[in-house]
Amino acid sequence: MTGDAKPDTPTAWIAGIDVGGTKTLFCLAGVDGSIRGKRKLDTQLSRDPKSFMEWLFAELGQFCQAHGTKLSKLAGVGIGLPGVMNEQTGILSSAPALDWPAEDIRPWIAHNYEGIVVLDNDVNMAALGEQCKGAAAGCEHFIMITVGTGIGGALYLNGQLYKGVTFSAGEIGYFVIEMDRETLSAGKSGVLERFGALENHASGTGIALQAARCMEDGELCPVLSLQAAGGPVTAKHVFAAAAEGSQLAARVLDRAYHLMAVAIANLTITLNPQLVVLGGGVVEKNAEYAGELAERVSALSPVAVDIRKAALGNEAGATGAVEAIRRALRGSGG
Amino acid sequence: MTGDAKPDTPTAWIAGIDVGGTKTLFCLAGVDGSIRGKRKLDTQLSRDPKSFMEWLFAELGQFCQAHGTKLSKLAGVGIGLPGVMNEQTGILSSAPALDWPAEDIRPWIAHNYEGIVVLDNDVNMAALGEQCKGAAAGCEHFIMITVGTGIGGALYLNGQLYKGVTFSAGEIGYFVIEMDRETLSAGKSGVLERFGALENHASGTGIALQAARCMEDGELCPVLSLQAAGGPVTAKHVFAAAAEGSQLAARVLDRAYHLMAVAIANLTITLNPQLVVLGGGVVEKNAEYAGELAERVSALSPVAVDIRKAALGNEAGATGAVEAIRRALRGSGG
Repeated sequence: MTGDAKPDTPTAWIAGIDVGGTKTLFCLAGVDGSIRGKRKLDTQLSRDPKSFMEWLFAELGQFCQAHGTKLSKLAGVGIGLPGVMNEQTGILSSAPALDWPAEDIRPWIAHNYEGIVVLDNDVNMAALGEQCKGAAAGCEHFIMITVGTGIGGALYLNGQLYKGVTFSAGEIGYFVIEMDRETLSAGKSGVLERFGALENHASGTGIALQAARCMEDGELCPVLSLQAAGGPVTAKHVFAAAAEGSQLAARVLDRAYHLMAVAIANLTITLNPQLVVLGGGVVEKNAEYAGELAERVSALSPVAVDIRKAALGNEAGATGAVEAIRRALRGSGG
Repeated sequence: MTGDAKPDTPTAWIAGIDVGGTKTLFCLAGVDGSIRGKRKLDTQLSRDPKSFMEWLFAELGQFCQAHGTKLSKLAGVGIGLPGVMNEQTGILSSAPALDWPAEDIRPWIAHNYEGIVVLDNDVNMAALGEQCKGAAAGCEHFIMITVGTGIGGALYLNGQLYKGVTFSAGEIGYFVIEMDRETLSAGKSGVLERFGALENHASGTGIALQAARCMEDGELCPVLSLQAAGGPVTAKHVFAAAAEGSQLAARVLDRAYHLMAVAIANLTITLNPQLVVLGGGVVEKNAEYAGELAERVSALSPVAVDIRKAALGNEAGATGAVEAIRRALRGSGG
């Protein structure tokens, strides 16, 4: 401590918030990025961004208070949102969990908090988190992919997030899979409205859907039926049934792995990154997932790439939201 | 003209060179980028980069002389090369037309010319050319794809070329096509050593190859046979036969278009660019090519993108090589 620094004045803190479809994680951190406190709540889903932001900032205010500070004293608030966040218009789209009208959400934030705010897609925030403290620490060119309920992606190129002209870069859940045309022309596309083609086969929801379809089509699988125990089939059941020898489950997983491997091979050929970081529920809950994909990608792509599991788990998004504010304070790009 | 400027001293010029597998185009331009002279020669193919560079700079020297200047007076020389140019090691790879040893080629250039030199992949140079004076003028985020003997690609993101960690970004000729696995496991991969999977079906060479295969497999096509007139089938023959009603040719082209449309849709989903610029012989010689692809991509991808034919033709590469020097002189990124 030298000069004008006053040791008894609390240093300004940064808030990082990761809004998920079911849970919202709040983090408070020092301006050096060190996490000082965390709080997880059920997301108060609301179709009205105004009341959502009132809830979010009321909770953040209480959280600040519990840590001896105030909302108005924060150096900035980073918020990761589950959708495509257009920084120019302030409109969040492709966000079924929130399903907001196509309106600028920034005024509803400004109504509650007047300081620096960075809004971004949740996977972009998770990529920032992994880049500053996780599996991609110090990496200049990498791709982050999350495989969970859906499939999300973020591109970190030349030392910053790359977002594209309408901020939808990296949304690889919408990848076209090659036989789409045949499937579509046969009148059984099976593409869910909410999901893209790749998601529909290779996300957690997609894996469950494809297995359930096989059974609906009359294919018997006692092992999988036992796992599902009369309830709806989930991805967890499919992974468990495959481990117990179910051929149906193994075939569905083989297809999901293959499509993901083709997608990652082509992303690697396109972007020649140092690294692909895999996160999300399906990756975290299945120890073999990242290794299996690494092997398949290396067999398909002539361009070498390192494939690693994400390191920060559910905290990647909030950690990245803190980092986004640190970068905004430094004036360096996303 | 003010101050120390001497109106009778010739302004320094920039040379831009596009080295192709068959032809090499030399351009001389003012520092404002305006082209002052062009010269096209047969490429003197050489497996020895030393003698190649001696030839290249001897020709450039003569060209300078013919325009009243000297090699030593140039402000810089930009060179586009048909392969992956690693800026860190100085090694050109994946360049079958030149087939050089894996050695640093920069000393062989320095031996002939001591000024500023920028070396890059020919498609990257063409993208720079289209960005400064062509179909992508002023664009900040676009993809350039060339479809000719092979398939090449370049990514222009955030106002500069994006090259990747080992400078192979954009080499989409190597895209994995989804049925590769089945084809490979059936023991008839048909993947040429020099070509990637997408190239093998959708480049000019690939289109000719697929049509020839169908005929070798016993499928008769009098229309295509007449076009080829007993010689080897080329892409030109396939396009002409399709126009005259050949079902075989139409099927081969439909598959080539479909695979390119899937590739471009997925590139668009990945990068969310403003624009895709299509160049190369197959695109230039077939008036319907760019429109056909635009229609198919729009039917496949949820992300809107403009698809345009390249504007500078064979001069894009040399124009971009001039622009690369202009940017180097300004100190801004590639």
